[in-house]
Amino acid sequence: MSTDLDYSGLIRSGLPAPMPKWQGFPKYNFIGGHNDTNSIPIGDMISAVTNVLEREGASLATYGLQNGPQGYKPLREFIVSKLAQRSGIITNIDNILITSGSGQALDLVNTLLCESGDTVLVEQFSYGSAIARLRKIGVNPIGIPLDNNGIKIDLLESKLIELRKNLIKPKYLYVIPTVQNPGGSIMPEENRRELLRLSREFDFPILEDECYADLLWNSKRPIALAAMDNGNRVIHCGSFSKTIAPALRVGYLVADWHLLSQILAVKNDSGTGALEQMMLAEYCVNHFDDHVNKLSSTLKDKLETLVEAVKVYFGTSAEFEVPEGGIFLWVSLPEHVDTIRLSQLAAKEGIAINPGPEWSTDTKPASSKLRLCFGHPSKKIIEEGVSKLAEICHQEFGVPLRGANRIRS
Amino acid sequence: MSTDLDYSGLIRSGLPAPMPKWQGFPKYNFIGGHNDTNSIPIGDMISAVTNVLEREGASLATYGLQNGPQGYKPLREFIVSKLAQRSGIITNIDNILITSGSGQALDLVNTLLCESGDTVLVEQFSYGSAIARLRKIGVNPIGIPLDNNGIKIDLLESKLIELRKNLIKPKYLYVIPTVQNPGGSIMPEENRRELLRLSREFDFPILEDECYADLLWNSKRPIALAAMDNGNRVIHCGSFSKTIAPALRVGYLVADWHLLSQILAVKNDSGTGALEQMMLAEYCVNHFDDHVNKLSSTLKDKLETLVEAVKVYFGTSAEFEVPEGGIFLWVSLPEHVDTIRLSQLAAKEGIAINPGPEWSTDTKPASSKLRLCFGHPSKKIIEEGVSKLAEICHQEFGVPLRGANRIRS
Repeated sequence: MSTDLDYSGLIRSGLPAPMPKWQGFPKYNFIGGHNDTNSIPIGDMISAVTNVLEREGASLATYGLQNGPQGYKPLREFIVSKLAQRSGIITNIDNILITSGSGQALDLVNTLLCESGDTVLVEQFSYGSAIARLRKIGVNPIGIPLDNNGIKIDLLESKLIELRKNLIKPKYLYVIPTVQNPGGSIMPEENRRELLRLSREFDFPILEDECYADLLWNSKRPIALAAMDNGNRVIHCGSFSKTIAPALRVGYLVADWHLLSQILAVKNDSGTGALEQMMLAEYCVNHFDDHVNKLSSTLKDKLETLVEAVKVYFGTSAEFEVPEGGIFLWVSLPEHVDTIRLSQLAAKEGIAINPGPEWSTDTKPASSKLRLCFGHPSKKIIEEGVSKLAEICHQEFGVPLRGANRIRS
Repeated sequence: MSTDLDYSGLIRSGLPAPMPKWQGFPKYNFIGGHNDTNSIPIGDMISAVTNVLEREGASLATYGLQNGPQGYKPLREFIVSKLAQRSGIITNIDNILITSGSGQALDLVNTLLCESGDTVLVEQFSYGSAIARLRKIGVNPIGIPLDNNGIKIDLLESKLIELRKNLIKPKYLYVIPTVQNPGGSIMPEENRRELLRLSREFDFPILEDECYADLLWNSKRPIALAAMDNGNRVIHCGSFSKTIAPALRVGYLVADWHLLSQILAVKNDSGTGALEQMMLAEYCVNHFDDHVNKLSSTLKDKLETLVEAVKVYFGTSAEFEVPEGGIFLWVSLPEHVDTIRLSQLAAKEGIAINPGPEWSTDTKPASSKLRLCFGHPSKKIIEEGVSKLAEICHQEFGVPLRGANRIRS
């Protein structure tokens, strides 16, 4: 009955390229925040969801479960206790907003603060999606170089002075101080104090992302920036994607109520999925600590496999710092290796990696770096995948030399 | 340690007013898509979520459950069969996108097609959030009047001619043909054919919203616009909020793959909550039809209570069409009644109603109308709430006359 409509004059300009049909994950999948399959606590999840539905299932009949637009209260209560225990943050449920993953938390902060043409400061190597979300809305992300202690305070300060001279006021600083993504560094307490000093001197808020901070091999860590700030200048976010399961899509934002009330006014999604919130609250109260300890040990074991494989197959061609937590290793290859090209060649062999430029504000300093996520692949797949990747890299770029492991030993 | 930051120079201009702290639902809650509390199928939900987690829980370790960005395949398969059976739409899972409620479906279509300054056609009285979403992004929603058969085809056609003369090309028409929100009308098949004819003649796509279409007292209904279009011009959306539970946040979009692939490219939320998708798929395959039949009968019963209460307490002052489905009644009061003022006075007495202008592109034609949702309140609360509302209306506007029921009988 109907002829096709030509959408070419209707579709908005400047959209990203259409997405191809999904073909399944590659065999050697070193990208994305996927987690260890065997670590999903299926039995305890079933008990949790059964208990909570038996007790409160009828409240699913209302938007927000009779708990209002900030999310399920018992989950906010758990987050308050987790933040106090693990991050040193003392807050209350009125300052917590449950979000659909931490990605929505980033979007909400951007909606609150940013317009096209604005400037936001970020670590030069940072979460690819955070950088992409800023660019998508026309914001200019300025990258500040990092070292093993995270963002370089002196370079941040000189950039702030330069911006002030040019009358540019950055809308905020996005920073991942605890298990930096991708570098894995943990910012020392002294540097955190310096960051807050700069925030006061230059009047900018800080968005602190702690998505990976609960996955540490060593439980010692400095308290969060949000814990050192007794005012309103640090907005904090986190997620259950990495500690429990990424498919659940539950994150959270912690902010001063005056900011949160403004953020709530622009959050028009009618709430985050209730079943996930209910299950998580019921599960986490009893099992979070044990689960995270066990998961961290599994991840550490996988990281050791990855580190060993990179040493064996890449030898001295690969440089990296072994992280104290998280699910990724940030590797530097010799300067002439173009990791975008490497990732394209690897994809043909079923190997997915993040080339450095995807995780950087600037292409050049990241052009020979890559991020390898180790949470999801098995140890066997990690070992095989790195071996194959080294072979592809050798064929295209001449490094690592064959027998790199022998040269190294 | 830190002094407060002044955000006044940082927060973006033009944001809506901050949201006050949530104080719980009002006692007489006639707004929102909340549903009947006793109809939540708790036991069957627990069985469903237990079965699916036992079988596939480990897949929660991956974003998208190994099912790709379009959503959990068994849920898409159920939607395909439901659309065929209930709406006459023949499609396949490649053309289905699971969304976080139908609100996200609307946002995605807007992101695909609209820029600030664009024009979109809508029914003059329509879903308040759909109108608000358009305005929020600077789009001009033009309302076309309705009658008991839905949008008036002749007025739509003259508006299209007028727009063409002024070189304005509407980006799409948003329409709710089956259980129109708020009017409750069901558009006859002949009018649907005429709508598609206009779509071809004037080259505009149609976004068909069927969020309420599965809640019918009488199973006979014309097939969906998307079923009459064998091309790409109708984009269709729906939801499980009204048929199963609003707190779950699961909706869907049905579109030609070429459009959907472009929509997928702008959907950057890493997927909709997996536990809800899994539970719904498992539950719906076995229980959807029975549940919806039972729920519809409960809703019809509540509507009868509401209709009776409005007749008794408002008498001849209230005019309405009794809908054949859904969860709301659209009531017209005498012209001098300002329902925005009425809603403010009612709120003080714990009664929440939607004043007409919230559900309309134009204030004036809706100024003495109101929407009463009957899914959530009990029959006792419905009867009491309408009685109190009539009293408030009488005190402020002199109508209904006291003893309106006697006058009417």
